[in-house]
Amino acid sequence: MSVRSVTLRYADRHLLGIESLSAQEILRILDCARELRSRPDFGASNELAGKSVITLFYEASTRTRISFEIAAHKLGASCTTIDSNSSSVTKGESVWDTGRTLASMDPSVIVSRHQSPGTAHILARAAESVGEQTAIVNAGDGAHEHPTQALLDALTLLDRLETLEGRTIAIIGDIAHSRVARSNLFLLRKLGATVLVGGPRSLVPKSLEHLGGTIGRDPDEIIEVADAVMMLRVQFERLSGPPPFPSLRDYTRTYGLTLARSRRMKPGAFVMHPGPMNRGIEIDPEVADGPTSVVAHQVRNGIACRMAVLQRATGQGPWAEGAA
Amino acid sequence: MSVRSVTLRYADRHLLGIESLSAQEILRILDCARELRSRPDFGASNELAGKSVITLFYEASTRTRISFEIAAHKLGASCTTIDSNSSSVTKGESVWDTGRTLASMDPSVIVSRHQSPGTAHILARAAESVGEQTAIVNAGDGAHEHPTQALLDALTLLDRLETLEGRTIAIIGDIAHSRVARSNLFLLRKLGATVLVGGPRSLVPKSLEHLGGTIGRDPDEIIEVADAVMMLRVQFERLSGPPPFPSLRDYTRTYGLTLARSRRMKPGAFVMHPGPMNRGIEIDPEVADGPTSVVAHQVRNGIACRMAVLQRATGQGPWAEGAA
Amino acid sequence: MSVRSVTLRYADRHLLGIESLSAQEILRILDCARELRSRPDFGASNELAGKSVITLFYEASTRTRISFEIAAHKLGASCTTIDSNSSSVTKGESVWDTGRTLASMDPSVIVSRHQSPGTAHILARAAESVGEQTAIVNAGDGAHEHPTQALLDALTLLDRLETLEGRTIAIIGDIAHSRVARSNLFLLRKLGATVLVGGPRSLVPKSLEHLGGTIGRDPDEIIEVADAVMMLRVQFERLSGPPPFPSLRDYTRTYGLTLARSRRMKPGAFVMHPGPMNRGIEIDPEVADGPTSVVAHQVRNGIACRMAVLQRATGQGPWAEGAA
Repeated sequence: MSVRSVTLRYADRHLLGIESLSAQEILRILDCARELRSRPDFGASNELAGKSVITLFYEASTRTRISFEIAAHKLGASCTTIDSNSSSVTKGESVWDTGRTLASMDPSVIVSRHQSPGTAHILARAAESVGEQTAIVNAGDGAHEHPTQALLDALTLLDRLETLEGRTIAIIGDIAHSRVARSNLFLLRKLGATVLVGGPRSLVPKSLEHLGGTIGRDPDEIIEVADAVMMLRVQFERLSGPPPFPSLRDYTRTYGLTLARSRRMKPGAFVMHPGPMNRGIEIDPEVADGPTSVVAHQVRNGIACRMAVLQRATGQGPWAEGAA
Repeated sequence: MSVRSVTLRYADRHLLGIESLSAQEILRILDCARELRSRPDFGASNELAGKSVITLFYEASTRTRISFEIAAHKLGASCTTIDSNSSSVTKGESVWDTGRTLASMDPSVIVSRHQSPGTAHILARAAESVGEQTAIVNAGDGAHEHPTQALLDALTLLDRLETLEGRTIAIIGDIAHSRVARSNLFLLRKLGATVLVGGPRSLVPKSLEHLGGTIGRDPDEIIEVADAVMMLRVQFERLSGPPPFPSLRDYTRTYGLTLARSRRMKPGAFVMHPGPMNRGIEIDPEVADGPTSVVAHQVRNGIACRMAVLQRATGQGPWAEGAA
Repeated sequence: MSVRSVTLRYADRHLLGIESLSAQEILRILDCARELRSRPDFGASNELAGKSVITLFYEASTRTRISFEIAAHKLGASCTTIDSNSSSVTKGESVWDTGRTLASMDPSVIVSRHQSPGTAHILARAAESVGEQTAIVNAGDGAHEHPTQALLDALTLLDRLETLEGRTIAIIGDIAHSRVARSNLFLLRKLGATVLVGGPRSLVPKSLEHLGGTIGRDPDEIIEVADAVMMLRVQFERLSGPPPFPSLRDYTRTYGLTLARSRRMKPGAFVMHPGPMNRGIEIDPEVADGPTSVVAHQVRNGIACRMAVLQRATGQGPWAEGAA
């Protein structure tokens, strides 16, 4: 199944990835998020009252699931949660059948996370196969995409940099296994930024250049030229067998954002991390909690971006018929 | 404890099983479900605003729990969820104590699923022992009953057949371990249908005739005369030891609803499955997703039936004082 | 980290323990709880509409989590739930980072349970470190405190005894591992009661006298003079190695509240238990469900007290600016 060809068939309500979004549509979502967070009480309203959102998480998550649920509640929608370890998944039901079943329950949105790339696409096709208008929002499908993370990262970058045209953003760490890196590569390139990626050769494959990344092996050089530095977590739970670097101590020494290394950043440059962080491994605690970190601001922007995505999924706000 | 004698003591708000319901009461619930689904926005309202529903699931489930939660939210009630793997159940608390405790928290309804027959009855008695008006709704108790599944099946059958009087409904598969089969046998018989059951001798015991089922060993013969064919899933998780049939391949060949076998159905006859399905085992994917399948319609009707059951549990709608 | 010195820095919205509360503040919470439960529909309102409550439970729980969620829903707040077994905790995130992340999502309240003493304090400091007004409510931190349990116990005692001045309250069982006992010791002493503690020497250390408890080894003597008897559960899940008493049978015979022993209580004296109960071990079923038991009433009062605590956390009700 070609992801691209499938994507184009879907209605605009789905958010399956950044790859298929236009720069214009990305900016519309970010504008909507800005408008929502500027409202009193961070946008709390009843716009989605009577509507249901299902969060379907086959992989453990705190921040993403809670962020979507708070976003849904702020808009007045109700939420129901499915975790992998308490679902019929354990009875061997396929994603296709789960999608058909859940869509038949008439939710407005299903937010899904799954370890396999393409799961959100399967759910979107399953919903359409039973004639339902349910929107699918991808909250992470394997190493493929995590579009709302890229959106909240973009909003955070634009809060500081005003534009991404001509800016240089560094992403350092396990790029190969990271859906965050992939979605960010798509988005940052669409908005005109240069993306420098760095990390161990085994985790930063040459093929990333096809996605528009510029590979720089030396973290110190990358850090010195970047307007913002995005550190990725070492995903111990995704590694099978021995880690693809000599030792954690070696990883931290070579690639970690230590306090000393952070001092090489340009004046005004800042540090991002999608979390959860491995403190003392890819990032020093002093950096994570220090003045150059915008990690908490990323989380705040996550609520606003997910509210915007839920409005888009349900045809509200700027996506309502007749909206300017 | 005699289930029958206990049942009769309970107020009408509980839904412990189909066995103790009159045909008139069943039809009242189905009428209410039809009325709710015909409303704009599938019956979304604030009728149960300020009321709490607890879903207490000692067994893993996706569809039933989510269906009840969406139904509760559509009526404006709030939901809290207890899953077996995160509850005090792991501290060894008895069902009796859990029932007394939860009922004392003043929920309007507790929806329960448990691996032991009779659990819903124990919860109903526990709630009454602390003087609470909490209604208990059985969402599956071991191999005993699953009344809302039978209600949604009946609504689906009546949508196509108009009446069950004189109709022939086939149920094929693991009847012995199936609460779905038991509740359907009770309901279909009360509404005048003939129920033909089929499956391996080990899974279709002679004792089923006491419940009003007519045992037909040959699936091909059953399928040719039925107005609707309900396929049950092979419940691998309930089988201990070797499966009670020679092989899965043999099971599918002899009892599965293959595409070829489905062509023996009468014109206008249709296929049901309570889910989750084992595709390629008891049902072919081409049949499950094909034009004779009403599986997605069953799921939709599940929301409407559970909304009706929640209205009954809280004395709303047709059950409100002064209602016609 | 000195718990005392940290506590004093926190704003009044947090509820980290009973130790740092004044008697006046305790009485204000109890007055608020009484007022709420006296309202029609047990205080259901929209006072916290648009506000979010996160329940963050690193330890399994039924009653406490559900009680807080129902309390939040009754006030119109929305709830999102994090269980240890489905959260990023499994990805090794620290409590500090989880606190910073969740607080950045702008919830009004985080209700937390964790196996380590001091966790609620860490969360409060984490929330403040990201500049958020989120209130932390401790729902149990190791063997340290469980303040809402002590509040609901006090409300139950005062419903019967009118005052705690000069009253004698017995607490029997595993005092050493019990946060319930600690919080109750603090609260009961602040309101003027004498607290008699009893149990096996290994579970009732001499150091309890520093907390104001009076150690009486003989349960029969304690029971005869108490106005109320609070039985604690044997916490099998906290014991490592062999149990600190010869046998369960021996424990029940010496320390359990058997029906025979309960008859030695003063006229009007009554029995409490925080649950979940080990029936037949620390308490006989006939006592647990009998006329001297107020266990169900404790649970009911738990909803009212948690509603009051949520009002306090969000500056509503008696804590609103301008309230009398």
